[in-house]
Amino acid sequence: MNILIVHAHPEPQSFTTAMKDKAVEKLTGQGHEVKVSDLYEMNWNPIASADDFADRKNKDYLVYALEQRHGYENETIAADIQAEVEKVLWADLVIFSFPIYWFSVPAILKGWFDRVFISGKIYGGLRFYDKGGMAGKKALVACTLGGQEHMFGEGAIHGPFEDMLRPLLRGTLRYAGFDVLPPFVGWHVPYISQEDREQFLVDYDAYLDKLEDLDPMTYPTMDQFDKTLRPMPK
Amino acid sequence: MNILIVHAHPEPQSFTTAMKDKAVEKLTGQGHEVKVSDLYEMNWNPIASADDFADRKNKDYLVYALEQRHGYENETIAADIQAEVEKVLWADLVIFSFPIYWFSVPAILKGWFDRVFISGKIYGGLRFYDKGGMAGKKALVACTLGGQEHMFGEGAIHGPFEDMLRPLLRGTLRYAGFDVLPPFVGWHVPYISQEDREQFLVDYDAYLDKLEDLDPMTYPTMDQFDKTLRPMPK
Repeated sequence: MNILIVHAHPEPQSFTTAMKDKAVEKLTGQGHEVKVSDLYEMNWNPIASADDFADRKNKDYLVYALEQRHGYENETIAADIQAEVEKVLWADLVIFSFPIYWFSVPAILKGWFDRVFISGKIYGGLRFYDKGGMAGKKALVACTLGGQEHMFGEGAIHGPFEDMLRPLLRGTLRYAGFDVLPPFVGWHVPYISQEDREQFLVDYDAYLDKLEDLDPMTYPTMDQFDKTLRPMPK
Repeated sequence: MNILIVHAHPEPQSFTTAMKDKAVEKLTGQGHEVKVSDLYEMNWNPIASADDFADRKNKDYLVYALEQRHGYENETIAADIQAEVEKVLWADLVIFSFPIYWFSVPAILKGWFDRVFISGKIYGGLRFYDKGGMAGKKALVACTLGGQEHMFGEGAIHGPFEDMLRPLLRGTLRYAGFDVLPPFVGWHVPYISQEDREQFLVDYDAYLDKLEDLDPMTYPTMDQFDKTLRPMPK
């Protein structure tokens, strides 16, 4: 497989970084081709703005998604975006490696989605969910957080983890067409022992071994809806 | 009331900006004090990093939340963060004004939460949800999106809108202690007629009139959980 790892952590010695390094070593060792976009190291610009377009379809009024289409089609979109889009198109699997900030991705990674998941190519019109532009590719969220595992689930204080990550797992990755693998989570990472952290690395190693056998998460499919995107009569 | 509007849109002429301007005019006219943080105009830096701390508790290893505590207590946190924290502490109501990007906030606003909602002051330890540092204050999400209203709700293609915005409404605003008012949403804004957009402004005006009477959304309360944050026996 061609594998892209998009990594976002402000501390280069972090455990999340160790997980990223583990994935690079492991997957390369298995014969996969691996590329890494280390957003902090790249000094990635997360801010979607008019500056992303050297040429504008409408110079007087910015509709970001429409300029994304125009910029990509005419190769006038910012070079940093173009490079990331090419990596995503190249990849069979994209791994997102980050610490949870506010039950979501750090802003630097949010802005990677805002700028790189361009309308027209990655998704657009009726091309989303199972019909999204990235259909056939896989995505894996491999994250860490301060919270403990018992704080998530039905009846737990924060509810199911997948519900808290819904805009990412379903609203972004599945929306774009990816088969979304069940997330790998390093719980309570800042507060546990070194031994427990090392156990997470062992678990992650084992998880990566079974990547190709994992069933993706289940979401609605477009054939359940009509052309106005209303549910089909049953 | 003291009202802070945090606004994030890359197009100054946007409809979302018109909504923000409407809110400023309306609420000022009613005698409220209103401050605006226009993140694009301020050239807000959304990237949480070691640069946010002039003095470090641990210079060798960055745990962002711990340095937030240290930096705020010792007044060594970055000046742009400090200024925003003071605005939030001043406000009785915070309105978030933005276009939905990937069922979430634009990165520039995500990074406002990452950097401004500091551990220790805004939340921390067991101080979250109804015990959060912002308890007694209100928050309102006033957003626009490309999607249509019938795409959201039980059985709809994207499910309930509040579920898609869960990390923001519950995981961020309620987590920090705010009473979260039901969001005001401008549906399908880029694709509707000028008349329909003007109707949204009329509706928003009416919505702002009843702000003080709106019931906040209902979420779990800390008394339903024990000190380990496990559910109390019923």
